[in-house]
Amino acid sequence: MSPAPTDQKLYLDDIAVGQEFLSREQRIEADQIVAFATEYDPQPFHTDAEAAQATFFQGLAASGWHTMAITMNLLVRSVPFAHGIIGAGGEISWPRPTRPGDVLHVKSKVIEIRPSQSKPDRATVILESLTYNQDGEVAQKLVSKLIAFKRER
Amino acid sequence: MSPAPTDQKLYLDDIAVGQEFLSREQRIEADQIVAFATEYDPQPFHTDAEAAQATFFQGLAASGWHTMAITMNLLVRSVPFAHGIIGAGGEISWPRPTRPGDVLHVKSKVIEIRPSQSKPDRATVILESLTYNQDGEVAQKLVSKLIAFKRER
Repeated sequence: MSPAPTDQKLYLDDIAVGQEFLSREQRIEADQIVAFATEYDPQPFHTDAEAAQATFFQGLAASGWHTMAITMNLLVRSVPFAHGIIGAGGEISWPRPTRPGDVLHVKSKVIEIRPSQSKPDRATVILESLTYNQDGEVAQKLVSKLIAFKRER
Repeated sequence: MSPAPTDQKLYLDDIAVGQEFLSREQRIEADQIVAFATEYDPQPFHTDAEAAQATFFQGLAASGWHTMAITMNLLVRSVPFAHGIIGAGGEISWPRPTRPGDVLHVKSKVIEIRPSQSKPDRATVILESLTYNQDGEVAQKLVSKLIAFKRER
């Protein structure tokens, strides 16, 4: 399983339970961790490497929402749904923090397909996306509800 | 209920089911929507106001993860847990998109407190956070699992 070519366009008809998608890798640096957190999650364990030592995280850690944002960037480029990655919501957890210098990639798998009751042209696709670091550890688990559309006829 | 003063520091002992927190307001502009999405969610409905017209969103819409990131910024400043807002995970949904010029605020409520089985100094606090726009519509619902600590004695 290698990263999907970008010219693929998957309609609902092309998506099946069990189907997998592998992203490319993306490295996260300390200055990016601090910049994201300064704007969106201004807490010492995300913005100040020295102050972070005495916190729950015992050192600088990325905001979970930064790990999520990078995951989204990797998903957009690896899960080629024809109308895009349109999420109604999802469940997220962080088994461990993302650290400066970590190199992340995302493996996604279609878990379930729920046809819409009211709109026959679409379905909710339940996609599980695991974000791994360079040591093969799971930094984030996301189960998202995506809207996928049938091919126009 | 007015925004919490910033000098409060809530330990587990100070947190009760039903307790509420109100954030200040934060406005989101089109250029911020495009900048966030260009880096983290590069899809036409988030990055190109003209191309967005022909999409599911029928106009420029913020990435849901941008709405979440702004929500986190508002949470950090309105939910004064003594050790910070440390999340193990949560559930998120977006009943409607955030649009350019929207002014968001967040109302949070403690739903449940689950004492840790293994670590007597802490508990998981289940916090529901609703992100409202200027029309009083819910743009995002987040139910997060936060770690709160007892006061050191």
